[in-house]
Amino acid sequence: MWGIIATWRMAFDGVTVASQLLKEGIAVGDAIELAIRLIEDNPLYKSVGYGGLPNIQGTVQLDAAYMDGDTYQIGSVAGISDVKNPISVAKQLSKERFNSFLVGEGARDYAVLHGFDIQNMLTDRAKSEWEKRLKEVQKNKLNPYDGHDTVGMVGLDVSGSMATGTSSSGLFMKQAGRIGDSPLSGSGFYVDSDIGGATATGLGEDLMKGCLSYEIVRLMKDGYSPQAACNQAVYDFADRLTKRNETAGAFSLIAMNRHGEWGVATNVEFAFVVATEKQKPTVYVATPTKDKQTTIEKVTEEWLEQQRKHATID
Amino acid sequence: MWGIIATWRMAFDGVTVASQLLKEGIAVGDAIELAIRLIEDNPLYKSVGYGGLPNIQGTVQLDAAYMDGDTYQIGSVAGISDVKNPISVAKQLSKERFNSFLVGEGARDYAVLHGFDIQNMLTDRAKSEWEKRLKEVQKNKLNPYDGHDTVGMVGLDVSGSMATGTSSSGLFMKQAGRIGDSPLSGSGFYVDSDIGGATATGLGEDLMKGCLSYEIVRLMKDGYSPQAACNQAVYDFADRLTKRNETAGAFSLIAMNRHGEWGVATNVEFAFVVATEKQKPTVYVATPTKDKQTTIEKVTEEWLEQQRKHATID
Repeated sequence: MWGIIATWRMAFDGVTVASQLLKEGIAVGDAIELAIRLIEDNPLYKSVGYGGLPNIQGTVQLDAAYMDGDTYQIGSVAGISDVKNPISVAKQLSKERFNSFLVGEGARDYAVLHGFDIQNMLTDRAKSEWEKRLKEVQKNKLNPYDGHDTVGMVGLDVSGSMATGTSSSGLFMKQAGRIGDSPLSGSGFYVDSDIGGATATGLGEDLMKGCLSYEIVRLMKDGYSPQAACNQAVYDFADRLTKRNETAGAFSLIAMNRHGEWGVATNVEFAFVVATEKQKPTVYVATPTKDKQTTIEKVTEEWLEQQRKHATID
Repeated sequence: MWGIIATWRMAFDGVTVASQLLKEGIAVGDAIELAIRLIEDNPLYKSVGYGGLPNIQGTVQLDAAYMDGDTYQIGSVAGISDVKNPISVAKQLSKERFNSFLVGEGARDYAVLHGFDIQNMLTDRAKSEWEKRLKEVQKNKLNPYDGHDTVGMVGLDVSGSMATGTSSSGLFMKQAGRIGDSPLSGSGFYVDSDIGGATATGLGEDLMKGCLSYEIVRLMKDGYSPQAACNQAVYDFADRLTKRNETAGAFSLIAMNRHGEWGVATNVEFAFVVATEKQKPTVYVATPTKDKQTTIEKVTEEWLEQQRKHATID
């Protein structure tokens, strides 16, 4: 059995390539790195890698992480600039015994020293969106939080190894140096090859309050199916957070266990992609129900067409 | 009932002051901030705040976090320089709905903008240790990991509110931009006023692999005593990590529940401080046993005298 699950429609092409390679027996870490690089390299995706929207100063600062479910090794970068593929830096850092989570200039310097590609990550399109938003801020109509489109993936290869990776440009118009949940173990991702893995997208500031990726893996360890684990963790936390903190941001979690079974839970409409030995790459949309379950539907051709327009036309 | 538990002998004076204030009815967040500030301000403590040992470039980069157990609000700074009291910046950030985890220059700029005290955090003593170690590195005898003396505290006030805080200069001779577990929710700290809280000190790179602070709180939620929760989480993870990853760094966890009961587990000899309504401030030393329990003993006057010498004489 092999399988891969990923957040958002934008992951479709990456998952399609990765699933072909997983079928051919590639190691899951390599499949995830490759799939996330494809998304980072696509200038049309406004929330990951090249073309990602900048912070309030106009600087693109990126977060990424990689975790190996066999060894628990983790590599993370946060607030990194000028680096073409943050996921690849994170994956290399996961092999370091010390200094495996680097932020800011230190992260960039590590990438330069180790020969990773450096480039200007600000596209004309992202710059123009930033300028437009700056004007809106001056008019005092700012909503700093615009979508939550981190790419996160969990995968399983034919040898039974699991891994997870995340990559994000974070909150549009974030303050300089702000980091989200994507590079944080337990909040943005967690995986154990003996159990399964989970990853998150959403308002990082709230995801950190719940450690939901870890909680979902823990519930799967206790015998929950991925779907039951996602429902239990996400809807229970959304309730508690709203009760304690008056409000809860948007967040969505996906999970896969070591048998390639998968699940999802979310407090907003949320698209994701799955491919397994039993199932060709498919885009689904998940929606929360009133009784704390999740409705999951394959997307229609019309929906995909709308997404294509949304992604390519500004 | 009120109570406070903190990592390491260096926390004794801070805990003593905080316990007096908790007795008088101060809010737990204020007590923890005050206690950690005292430790940050003490130039004799080589692993926290002023006098903390620098990174490999000679720069003091600090990590800190604060979490409110009533609201789950979290503030974190990582890789911050020139800021006298990182814990106070973290506490203020915990009130921000967005941008509550800041790293590097962005974290420093936030502190400057909000009027926090800025100072040169490198003491002559820390600089001289760094120079000495640099020479050892040149002679190729480097062990980059030197102690794990993060201060972490969990407290409970008479109104039943709980909070946790951490502060650390991280790994001595760390790479620029390296951050540890101290600013990371779930790994370095976690607290829920309905249950209890936990905090960690140790090799951050390994603590991130286990999310042990969250796991201990979760076990307390399931009915474990703080001591049973610490034993279960820490020794199980130490076993799994050694099995999966060949080696496990040093780590120590402390916990307190909402009744002021406390616990500790560690894979090395580890000193910590406790004060509660029932118990004046006391320094204990914890040691792991072969059957996955923890031996806890009050320290002797001789031990304290040794520590005093160690702290003041280089």
